[in-house]
Amino acid sequence: MEVTRQNYKDSLNTVYSAIEEADFLAIDGEFSGISDGPNVSALTNGLDTPEERYTKLKKHSMDFLLFQFGLCTFTYDQTKSKYITKSFNFYVFPKPFNRTSPDLKFICQSSSIDFLASQGFDFNKVFCHGIPYLNQEEEAQLREQTEERRNQHANGVGTPSYISPSSKGPAHVPEEHKDYINRVMFQRKLIYQTLNWKFPKGLHVETVETEKKERYIQVSKVDDEERKRREQQKQEREQVSLGFRMDIELAKLVVGHNMLLDVMHTIHQFYCPLPEDLQDFKEITMCLLTCLHNSELITNTSLAELEKQLKESPFKSPQVETAEGFPGYDTAQGQLHEAGYDAYITGLCFISMANYLGSFLTPPKAYISAHSKLIEPFFNKLFLMRIIDIPYLNITGPDLQPKRDHVLYVTFPKEWKTSDLYQLFSAFGNIQVSWIDDTSAFVSLSQTDQVQIAMNTSRYAESYRIQTYAEYIQGKQQDKEKLNQTPKSWGEDGWMKPHYTSPTCAGFGYPRGLRKRSISPAQGEQGAGDSPITDGWSHCSYPESTGSKKMKTDGVCVNACVPKYFPAVVICSRFPLNY
Amino acid sequence: MEVTRQNYKDSLNTVYSAIEEADFLAIDGEFSGISDGPNVSALTNGLDTPEERYTKLKKHSMDFLLFQFGLCTFTYDQTKSKYITKSFNFYVFPKPFNRTSPDLKFICQSSSIDFLASQGFDFNKVFCHGIPYLNQEEEAQLREQTEERRNQHANGVGTPSYISPSSKGPAHVPEEHKDYINRVMFQRKLIYQTLNWKFPKGLHVETVETEKKERYIQVSKVDDEERKRREQQKQEREQVSLGFRMDIELAKLVVGHNMLLDVMHTIHQFYCPLPEDLQDFKEITMCLLTCLHNSELITNTSLAELEKQLKESPFKSPQVETAEGFPGYDTAQGQLHEAGYDAYITGLCFISMANYLGSFLTPPKAYISAHSKLIEPFFNKLFLMRIIDIPYLNITGPDLQPKRDHVLYVTFPKEWKTSDLYQLFSAFGNIQVSWIDDTSAFVSLSQTDQVQIAMNTSRYAESYRIQTYAEYIQGKQQDKEKLNQTPKSWGEDGWMKPHYTSPTCAGFGYPRGLRKRSISPAQGEQGAGDSPITDGWSHCSYPESTGSKKMKTDGVCVNACVPKYFPAVVICSRFPLNY
Repeated sequence: MEVTRQNYKDSLNTVYSAIEEADFLAIDGEFSGISDGPNVSALTNGLDTPEERYTKLKKHSMDFLLFQFGLCTFTYDQTKSKYITKSFNFYVFPKPFNRTSPDLKFICQSSSIDFLASQGFDFNKVFCHGIPYLNQEEEAQLREQTEERRNQHANGVGTPSYISPSSKGPAHVPEEHKDYINRVMFQRKLIYQTLNWKFPKGLHVETVETEKKERYIQVSKVDDEERKRREQQKQEREQVSLGFRMDIELAKLVVGHNMLLDVMHTIHQFYCPLPEDLQDFKEITMCLLTCLHNSELITNTSLAELEKQLKESPFKSPQVETAEGFPGYDTAQGQLHEAGYDAYITGLCFISMANYLGSFLTPPKAYISAHSKLIEPFFNKLFLMRIIDIPYLNITGPDLQPKRDHVLYVTFPKEWKTSDLYQLFSAFGNIQVSWIDDTSAFVSLSQTDQVQIAMNTSRYAESYRIQTYAEYIQGKQQDKEKLNQTPKSWGEDGWMKPHYTSPTCAGFGYPRGLRKRSISPAQGEQGAGDSPITDGWSHCSYPESTGSKKMKTDGVCVNACVPKYFPAVVICSRFPLNY
Repeated sequence: MEVTRQNYKDSLNTVYSAIEEADFLAIDGEFSGISDGPNVSALTNGLDTPEERYTKLKKHSMDFLLFQFGLCTFTYDQTKSKYITKSFNFYVFPKPFNRTSPDLKFICQSSSIDFLASQGFDFNKVFCHGIPYLNQEEEAQLREQTEERRNQHANGVGTPSYISPSSKGPAHVPEEHKDYINRVMFQRKLIYQTLNWKFPKGLHVETVETEKKERYIQVSKVDDEERKRREQQKQEREQVSLGFRMDIELAKLVVGHNMLLDVMHTIHQFYCPLPEDLQDFKEITMCLLTCLHNSELITNTSLAELEKQLKESPFKSPQVETAEGFPGYDTAQGQLHEAGYDAYITGLCFISMANYLGSFLTPPKAYISAHSKLIEPFFNKLFLMRIIDIPYLNITGPDLQPKRDHVLYVTFPKEWKTSDLYQLFSAFGNIQVSWIDDTSAFVSLSQTDQVQIAMNTSRYAESYRIQTYAEYIQGKQQDKEKLNQTPKSWGEDGWMKPHYTSPTCAGFGYPRGLRKRSISPAQGEQGAGDSPITDGWSHCSYPESTGSKKMKTDGVCVNACVPKYFPAVVICSRFPLNY
């Protein structure tokens, strides 16, 4: 179902009840771009720390627009033994509410736009009929303004003659047009005054703007009752026009694919600016989603690829059916990169994977409900795409800290290419290169005991320099402390961040009436009674067939046995559309 | 006529011959936004110097996309005594040519997008079917790459196995996918090798990408002749796919509305990065448009408003007719903000104004040709929107330097509003405020002799500070010199710029084979024989009815008698589509 500015208000009940009845939800976003800074391989360095990844995404991905929000609800029908699905595509666009409201700028990346265009994405629908929205602060400002205007009106003060887009007072009117403007202003005032005086109760007067931006004064002859009705209608219209927003207080499992970016965009676009510090981001996410539970069964593979593989053994195609009155998706045809379809596919993947977990039970179960304890270990962990040894961001506790004692930090002249690094380390067998920027990279050796040899041989090198990973981190920490002493000098370099004292919820403008909930980091860490898994990533407890056999087991130990397919799974008592 | 990626190649001859036969051309662009920095009133301060205006537009307007280029040709038909028009809408979009070519990011401003959407602008056409383009440098790089690949192929070296978007060598392939990638690479190589060996002459092999981004290897059984034909076709396709570009060596008058922005965007987007210095911009513009002649008959009024007023006395509606086979525009209906329509209207305005000039002749002439000497005084001058006393940018010589000795530069606390300034200067009668930023503004007094009084009274003020305009300019000049001594510290502030030694044409990468022409600044300054006008802006030589009676005559003297309607008029021997 497509939801735009036109049918948004009328669709809300359908959306609410679909969510209410659902066993779990899948979400997905379409964006106007991915990275406005380094190329994607630099944006997603395989040895990023969670803090670095968060900082990079915040710096280089948040100026893009989330312009389609996909939601697919899955409700299990016991009699049919299958899930019934309802999918929604919300088109969103920051159409300015009036001439004084914020005029958002967003970046488009040609390759992303071109890709969406090639998939038949309807940009006209976004820009012409997208549901408008405001973040929390903008909304508060607009409400204040509206309230003020209403009070002025009630007190007979009248609206200000005209509002300039600059808060600094009326715009500059060229000398030769002043006469004209004054004449128009006078006429307008005269119309309002005369009407109020001649028809104190019998008329309703309103400035109306057409879709084509033509503004005119609408005068209607009405009786007292009709007049009140219209006033109320106008107020309601102002409420509705506040746009994309839903308040849902239900505990629902929400799954997504590479969901960190979706969550970050959602908070940034509809709620509040992202904090500098990862810890603060985790707290906001928890506040917002109350008790976000999330886990990972996902891979680097694209969604399309993932969906294909999950139809094959050891997985089974899930049994689903589209709810009556909702347009169905045909997975064989493919309609990828419509957000609702991507959410639908993500949900299918989740079902396959959840059911697959059931095959480890004794006796095996073919169907694992979204409410099963088997899934709980995966809660609260957002997938970190393309980080070699930290598979997920742990929203409710400290992140994994792999030792990385086989990793070297190498700096060199900017002419160097990957082949130069391979040559430099040719004596050490298989290496892995993760580029940081033009003049530095991480080099992972296959054996930790080679590190000291490499360090020794590099001692007298002039063109390049090698540090251990521990030395590198220590250096960064020192830089950070220096920066905190001179807070004015940072800001250009997205890799550095000032010390950010963890604020209370209120400090970030958390939603009114929503207090910070207590976070229990241990919640997801306890093994579920009927599960062979401890923390959802448990090391080597999966059979080889899930993909671990293809992984390197030397050096990188933490993720050696991570299951091959891990979807981002989130449970929250407030659905993330509520910002 | 709409020109997109699909019909671009086939339409070129139609475009060329329309230009060739035309008496004059009108152009217009549609952009994804106007300003990514200060609001429009700060972007267009009424007392900007030409350098400041150029710097601000360069800093705050060039990251938007010109996505529709409108061209309307006007050819006078002597027998019908009317102009025959042909209009074109070129949709342009920087679709990446291949996986290694630049992936441009551009900014969208919500209000601009919303406005275009409300006018029925077709964004899908831009993004799906926009003509791709490269600037000069990108094109040279792509040509080099293509040439290299072709040579490698000819030498039997073969194409590199795969090209990563990073120039640093192959992208990072996760360990668990290396097997798969290697298998695919091997199969691909095997197919090529086997085919070459088994069918050394009978097959044509090519990698093809569909509109939906699916890539596959196409193998066709062909004879020798067919094979050559296909190779040639492929080369031609590569040529054509270089995109939006026309080489036209014709002296044609080109008119535009607020054309400075169009010219800047055109150079920036399709040709080369804009230089820091205004003087260098003028030189590039001259090099590019060979001998750009431009003049001003335009006002602050919107195009729609202008078109309406030019239908009324003392102007006359021009007689025009749409050429056969071209879709006509109905000015009564309005189709504004399609670039081709805006160009059409701009042309109509020019005709009305040119003919109006004829009414000053003895005896009066009803029709003034685009080739008339009457128009020449307006050449080479680009309209400067919303600058009080410098109506135009003089492309071929020094700009006007109004004394501004009635202007004060005032700094104050950031809480101040326009009303505070009115109060401060309440003793001096009518003043005009031009905001610079939160804490400073220009205040124009109505009498020059009040300046000293204002300066005296402000001597002991603590909350604000007043400088004369001359002092302000001197201070800026000194800042600029300081900055030049420490060139590393500038750059953040768009108002400051380093000293830029005037380069030769070659220094900017001017088009190959296009040498810098000599500029004769006096060319437009000589009065034409049959004209009552000297420089096109001649002071008080127009009758009052053209609008001068509405202007202040005290204080601001230079523009006191600028005719009310001045379109941007450009003559160039190379049409500006040629970059």
